[in-house]
Amino acid sequence: MSDTPIDLDALRQRIDALDSDILRLINERAAAAQQVAQVKTAEDPKAVFYRPEREAQVLRRIMALNKGPLDSEEVARLFREIMSACLALEQPIKVAYLGPEGTFTQQAAIKHFGESAISLPMAAIDEVFREVEAGAVNYGVVPVENSTEGVINHTLDSFMDSGLRICGEVVLRIHHHLLVAETTRQDKVSRIYSHPQSFAQCRKWLDAHFPHAERVPVSSNAEAARLVKTEWHSAAIAGDMAAKLYDLTRLAEKIEDRPDNSTRFLIIGHQDVPMSGEDKTSIVVAMRNQPGALHDLLEPFHRHQIDMTRLETRPSRSGVWNYVFFIDFKGHRDEPRVAAVLEEVRLRAAEVKVLGSYPIGVL
Amino acid sequence: MSDTPIDLDALRQRIDALDSDILRLINERAAAAQQVAQVKTAEDPKAVFYRPEREAQVLRRIMALNKGPLDSEEVARLFREIMSACLALEQPIKVAYLGPEGTFTQQAAIKHFGESAISLPMAAIDEVFREVEAGAVNYGVVPVENSTEGVINHTLDSFMDSGLRICGEVVLRIHHHLLVAETTRQDKVSRIYSHPQSFAQCRKWLDAHFPHAERVPVSSNAEAARLVKTEWHSAAIAGDMAAKLYDLTRLAEKIEDRPDNSTRFLIIGHQDVPMSGEDKTSIVVAMRNQPGALHDLLEPFHRHQIDMTRLETRPSRSGVWNYVFFIDFKGHRDEPRVAAVLEEVRLRAAEVKVLGSYPIGVL
Repeated sequence: MSDTPIDLDALRQRIDALDSDILRLINERAAAAQQVAQVKTAEDPKAVFYRPEREAQVLRRIMALNKGPLDSEEVARLFREIMSACLALEQPIKVAYLGPEGTFTQQAAIKHFGESAISLPMAAIDEVFREVEAGAVNYGVVPVENSTEGVINHTLDSFMDSGLRICGEVVLRIHHHLLVAETTRQDKVSRIYSHPQSFAQCRKWLDAHFPHAERVPVSSNAEAARLVKTEWHSAAIAGDMAAKLYDLTRLAEKIEDRPDNSTRFLIIGHQDVPMSGEDKTSIVVAMRNQPGALHDLLEPFHRHQIDMTRLETRPSRSGVWNYVFFIDFKGHRDEPRVAAVLEEVRLRAAEVKVLGSYPIGVL
Repeated sequence: MSDTPIDLDALRQRIDALDSDILRLINERAAAAQQVAQVKTAEDPKAVFYRPEREAQVLRRIMALNKGPLDSEEVARLFREIMSACLALEQPIKVAYLGPEGTFTQQAAIKHFGESAISLPMAAIDEVFREVEAGAVNYGVVPVENSTEGVINHTLDSFMDSGLRICGEVVLRIHHHLLVAETTRQDKVSRIYSHPQSFAQCRKWLDAHFPHAERVPVSSNAEAARLVKTEWHSAAIAGDMAAKLYDLTRLAEKIEDRPDNSTRFLIIGHQDVPMSGEDKTSIVVAMRNQPGALHDLLEPFHRHQIDMTRLETRPSRSGVWNYVFFIDFKGHRDEPRVAAVLEEVRLRAAEVKVLGSYPIGVL
């Protein structure tokens, strides 16, 4: 293959030329974003340049346009970073998140705001709320539900006393697989390694499929994956990353008992976010305890065919109302259909507060 | 300004058009990278697609070409991510780093390999070496020097027993500033908040400039910055991020006693990295203890005008030689000038091992 070096050189020259074009276009994009900021500032000197609905639209459009070879998730991630860099040029976004650094909440903050945002870990959820309320940061990121621990009540409770809005959501999905070394057959697995939490999340599946295998808890799923690499009679429960890292075979995929094994985070801020086209609304409703009250409350949603995605009941802290319901549903408060339902709910409940309408998490 | 909405719409349409072009070019780049991988695989089925010297050249070129408005650091970060995504398409890079997650070493790994690499935290430096040696991962990332703790001896010692090469370096710089609320004057500062480690790093400067101010240690520099926001007689020692986050004024910049306040990390692997144009070489030299030995050893570097960037002395663990020197210098082992010096050093030392020639850290 005497012509190979020439081919490689030609390909590298082509990549260099593409890089020059990409660089130029990214800078042109940044310049256009600066112009947008100038127009907005001329209108309103205190204008907020970050627009969650516009960003969601851009990402959805890019993912729909994408023809590969890069997959849509990678492409969305790159565009998130490009938008983040363009925005930071004019008005760096400041974000407080539930720390410490290196947690899933930080991962969610980066996934949503990109690496160019300035982010600060807080020691507690109410500190995140306080920093946003005080205006020290533009947004906060807090976990709100988590398949293992359930709803993060502390976050819901913080909303009861706060004037902050929900401006967005981020979902981090976690899948578990049963992984083995390449040569291991299903009927040979006599031992399974995993982190205790992952065992708990896959318990039913394990009881059904591997009732007799020994379950050995280890410090992390990555450690479990590492161990089975050299043990022909063992399997590990771990995620995609560990499977890739140790080149393991998936004997079974997505074995978690709850298919929605994920953590959901909310972006909190001061903004009312306009419609993006695919939105969700969160409300909190206080009710007197009387027979049929919940049925009455939910009936308008059913009648208007509004898709409820979550309902949480919390005891009221004020003592005046017996129950408080946190309800998430699809649609935006500015849609006539949603406005109509909210009006009806207001007539039936003691108190209704709209926490926010926001784009459904992209990805 | 009745025409503003039209202007904004026009600008957004322009951004959408730019995004479509950027998306197309990034995918063309990924396709070209796939072709490079095919050519390489045809030549050698076990070819390594990640080329540290090529990546350094691409980033240096992009930074030189950049005319803004995005700054070169942001642009380099975006291209690192684009390259990382293109590479992951064909052959995802696997990296082990000194954990836990959320540490500076993870930050260094992401800075070097991008978010698309698969990375795994290890509990100890020798575990990182072991995972790379065993071939479970392609590369390892370990800290090697740190302005506060000095050299990480454990990393140097690991090289003595290992056949691994140094394939690259990453430097994370840390600057400290004296920050105050906007209205605070220098002569009013009677109290300074900071983390104890930062006090230690700025001690001489503080003794010279604020000998009488009370020094109050707090849990983090971000906390220090938060406190001074509302205290007119106080200042905080903290970095860029905290200054931006709390909109503080810099009364003095870069007040750390050592101007090179940074942490340096090494990328370890199996590869001999070709010249990138701006390279560094690390060697380890074993010497018998005799008068003038070190001077003899260093003389060839001086004569050939080779710029030594670091020299560390470690007691030899084998007991056969009295001293072991770790030397970093500018240049690549394949340069005739460097080859000549290495030849001369070999004649004078008991043993010389080239740990690697690699691109000087970009950024």
